[in-house]
Amino acid sequence: MKSAHQPFVILLALCLVGCKPAVEINVPAIKTAIQKVLNQQVKDWNEGSVEKFMHGYQQAETTRFASGGNISQGWQTVFERYKKTYADKAAMGKLTFSDVDITVAGQDAALVFGRWRVEREKDELSGLFTLLFRKTAEGWRIVHDHTSAANKN
Amino acid sequence: MKSAHQPFVILLALCLVGCKPAVEINVPAIKTAIQKVLNQQVKDWNEGSVEKFMHGYQQAETTRFASGGNISQGWQTVFERYKKTYADKAAMGKLTFSDVDITVAGQDAALVFGRWRVEREKDELSGLFTLLFRKTAEGWRIVHDHTSAANKN
Repeated sequence: MKSAHQPFVILLALCLVGCKPAVEINVPAIKTAIQKVLNQQVKDWNEGSVEKFMHGYQQAETTRFASGGNISQGWQTVFERYKKTYADKAAMGKLTFSDVDITVAGQDAALVFGRWRVEREKDELSGLFTLLFRKTAEGWRIVHDHTSAANKN
Repeated sequence: MKSAHQPFVILLALCLVGCKPAVEINVPAIKTAIQKVLNQQVKDWNEGSVEKFMHGYQQAETTRFASGGNISQGWQTVFERYKKTYADKAAMGKLTFSDVDITVAGQDAALVFGRWRVEREKDELSGLFTLLFRKTAEGWRIVHDHTSAANKN
């Protein structure tokens, strides 16, 4: 083909190679999706199922849970830690999250910060959490969790 | 203008409006820039300057420091907390960061996870940190810090 169109065709081709559609990050939709995962986690916890609660975490070796000075590396290790720390429904108590603040960092990443509280028959635990959510094939999942506990008074 | 070029001109115009240059995220460059901020913080801390150390945090009301069950909101509040907790060079001791893991979440956001240690004349403190860095007009700065301390044995 040799025509007057040629320069435009070349320019168009260059544009299509060098550009990509301007993917707008839908911040409200991401926040809603993440809030839904958190709500489900609270529901599952309060029904006494650590296993279902664990669906919120990406099932991967890279999934990490940090607390105090300790790191639990890998979904299975995080699961084992939860099962050990909260052995039964009485130990799990009633979980609530509050002051949840979601910062969307990109189209597949968000930081979530908030307060957690576990009310039990005999005591109450509380503290703060910072989560890194990534959009995985299964949906938005926690890949990093840093939790701290308030000192009991 | 009414010519055979017209469809291409329109297509090109649509492409230029609907597309933007494919900005590749330069992960190694971002990691290097962030590591530099962290190195500078360690240097400033070990020279006994909390004020210089605070340059690593974005000077904004939104900057947040979380520890245990407490939140310090705003750069000035974070600064005051550090000055109170580490009143002089002896209290500041020698700071080191280790196992630093940087996850680039977007072209202006990254999560940094690692261990901190403060060695002092009479004791040693240590724990973990999760930081959210954002690229600000001043460069990469910490906008969220969640720190936890290991239990002393």
